[in-house]
Formats: sequence, C-alpha cells, structure tokens
Amino acid sequence: MRYELYYWPEIPGRGEFVRLALEEAGAAYVDVARGKAGTAAMFKLMESERVKTRPFAPPFLKAGKLLIGQTANILLFLGVRHRLAPRDEGGRLWVHQLQLTIADFVDEAHDTHHPIASSLYYEDQKKEAKRRTADFLKNRVPKYFDYFDDVIARNRGSKYLAGKRLTYADLSLFQIVAGMRYAFPKAMAKLERKVPRVVALHDLVTQRPRIAAYLASDRRIPFNEMGIFRQYDELDA
Amino acid sequence: MRYELYYWPEIPGRGEFVRLALEEAGAAYVDVARGKAGTAAMFKLMESERVKTRPFAPPFLKAGKLLIGQTANILLFLGVRHRLAPRDEGGRLWVHQLQLTIADFVDEAHDTHHPIASSLYYEDQKKEAKRRTADFLKNRVPKYFDYFDDVIARNRGSKYLAGKRLTYADLSLFQIVAGMRYAFPKAMAKLERKVPRVVALHDLVTQRPRIAAYLASDRRIPFNEMGIFRQYDELDA
Repeated sequence: MRYELYYWPEIPGRGEFVRLALEEAGAAYVDVARGKAGTAAMFKLMESERVKTRPFAPPFLKAGKLLIGQTANILLFLGVRHRLAPRDEGGRLWVHQLQLTIADFVDEAHDTHHPIASSLYYEDQKKEAKRRTADFLKNRVPKYFDYFDDVIARNRGSKYLAGKRLTYADLSLFQIVAGMRYAFPKAMAKLERKVPRVVALHDLVTQRPRIAAYLASDRRIPFNEMGIFRQYDELDA
Repeated sequence: MRYELYYWPEIPGRGEFVRLALEEAGAAYVDVARGKAGTAAMFKLMESERVKTRPFAPPFLKAGKLLIGQTANILLFLGVRHRLAPRDEGGRLWVHQLQLTIADFVDEAHDTHHPIASSLYYEDQKKEAKRRTADFLKNRVPKYFDYFDDVIARNRGSKYLAGKRLTYADLSLFQIVAGMRYAFPKAMAKLERKVPRVVALHDLVTQRPRIAAYLASDRRIPFNEMGIFRQYDELDA
C-alpha cells in the first residue's frame, strides 16, 4: 500500500513531522499536493460529500480506506505500524504525550509571528509579534527545551526521549530544533549550551541514513517565510 | 483501582474534559489538588526525580503505575477502557482526531484573552485581546462550529459526532459549547442558530443521568475569570 500525504506544497509546516516519520520508516508515499494534482486534489478530498471523516485542516494521510487527520494522530497511527513507537500501552501513550507537547510548542512558535490572527499579514501585527516573541524566547522556549532535555536525562542509558530506540517524537524534536535554528539563530545559539542532550539527539537524527538521504533530497522543503518557523531578524533577540 | 486526577483546583480548564469522561464512565477517581493535599501534591509528582514520564503541565492522570499527561492523550486512554470510543482502529483514530481539533479550538479560545503572553495579566494585553477576539468570533468560531455541525450531519442516523454511541469527543464538544455560552453569550446566541446539531448534541449530553448528576454537584467547577473561557463583556461582540 502506498500512503497519500496531503499538505500545503510550499512549506514544511506541520506536514513535515509526518514526512520525517514516513521517510525514516522507508514507507512508500506520495506527497499529493506537490504533484500535478496540486492543492486542488487536497481540497477536493476535504470537501467531498463522500468523506465521512472529513479533516478540519491539512495535514491528513490516506492509508487504504482510512483518512487520518491531525499531525499527532497520524504519527500515533504510523508509530504502531512502522516501529516508531513502543509496543506496550504505557510506552505508546508516553511517546504520544511527548508529541502533543511538541505540538503545543509548534502552536506557540507559529503565534510568535501571528499573535492576533492567521488571517492577517505579519506586517499588520508586527508590534504585537515583537511583544509575543520576547515572552516566547524568554519564558516559553527555555521551559520546553529544558523539559525535553530533562526527559532525555531521565531516560537513563538512552540518548532518545523514550526507551532505547528512536521514536517519532525524536524525529519531531529534531524538526523543532532545526526550525528554531532557522527562525531564531541568535536566541538558539545561547539556548543550545543549556540543552546538550536535545542538541545531541538532533544530531543523532541527522545521521540516520534514511533521514540524511531525505534531508539532502528535494523532497525536503526548506524553511521559509510562509511556514511556522520564519526568519524575521527583528524578532530574534 | 481508583484514578488520581491532578489539575488546578480552581478552574474547569483542560482538566474538565477529563472530569466529564470520568463522570460519564462512572469511574472511581480523586481530584487530588482539590483535596487536603492541594496543589503541593501535584507539584511534588511533577518534580519528583523518581517519575520517568514527567508531564509538562497539568492535567495528568495516575492510573495504577501509569502517569498520563496531555488532555487528549488521557482521553485516548480512558476512551478504550470505558467504552467512550469505538473499538476498531479507524473509529478510535477518528474520535481522537476530533478531540485534537477541539484541543486546537480550546487553545485559540484561551489566547483570546492572552494573545501576547500567559505570564502577563489580561489588563496588560487588553487592546490586543480585543483585536484577537474580533477575529476569533468572526472567522475561527464559525469555522470550527460549522465543521462540528457538518461532522454530525455526515454521521447519518446518529446524533453524535462519531458512530452510534456517545464518545469522549461528544462530552468535550458539550464543554466548549458551555464555555462559549459563558464567555461570549451575545456572539453564541447568534451562532447557535446556524449549528443546530451541535446545540442538540450539547443538550443530549446534559440529559445523561451521570452527567446531569455531576453538573448539579459541587464537583463541577463553575466557569470563572481564571480559566480558559472568561466572561469579559468588552470582548463579546
């Protein structure tokens, strides 16, 4: 079976967390909206009267007869199928919990440049973006990154977040480190000294053969100013 | 086994989604921080060196040896155990997807009064709160509620979101309707005419014997101005 991933074709965004899992799993998939059919195929599926489990927003994954939305939910599904999560109930829930915490972080990272409304341009909420970003970098980023560093520390004898093997949460943590480096290079340079385990895990992920090949390919979409992690010099402290 | 729920004792907040599921299930549980031990017991567990799966934030649930954090993750766990979710994989994922969409809505509802920073008072971000709320009520609330109404409509022959039985997502939908009525009575009065299925499902939930008993009890914490849904007249359009 070949998976069909549906996501905005021009940004890494939330779809990237799914792509990383599919790539690490070596799964066969099509990134539908990046093909000829474009976003029209995505909207068609979202609006089809025949779809009973209509997703609220991209990304969503078609897996045979299943249509699965919400990033963390897609990863929950893929984790079980592709050994990217522990098999026991406690381990599975723990990895999902970490993923949902990463999802919260991603929401907050997005809102740094859109604190008032997604429907408005950044330029129309720039002043507010500066205030929100200042708090984000001072209070929120250290809180999240210290937490993830501590989670790795407590996972004795392992360099991963959970258990002795790589999980989808590790891939997602890699992605938020990469995103933060892109968006806030100055703030991250300072922060990284304090979270060595997170940085080491990021590096471990880049060394995995399938991920390394993926990152070097044109399947990997570069960060840009339409996505979640945006480089606006005036916001980086 | 008696569950232990850990959450801030003075607000419904995110803990309420868990409480509703526990109550509907008729499960034995202690709302720990509302007892004598207070929030000290909650912080102790969060900070204990012995906890390997430390939660990032409340709510979290102790279920025997498992310590489960993240609201939607707790519900994923309870749904399986207490028949508040379908048994088949597709059904379980679908209900979880709906819950995650409700979680996104809850985040947005919270940020209406705290668009700049949770660490600042409402009074220090009131101007921004007005702008954000205007967009929330005009664009976001109708988008979410139309979506949920449509999901119920597509679930032919049922008044619930998914399948023929009540799920934890239905309980959570009830809670966001109740919260929106509290926070934005004027805006909701207008909106409700357009989403009759959502309103009907809210009413169905209030009629369930265990939920009705719960709502009439002092275990149910009233909405207030420390929680997610806050009544600030100046924000209600």
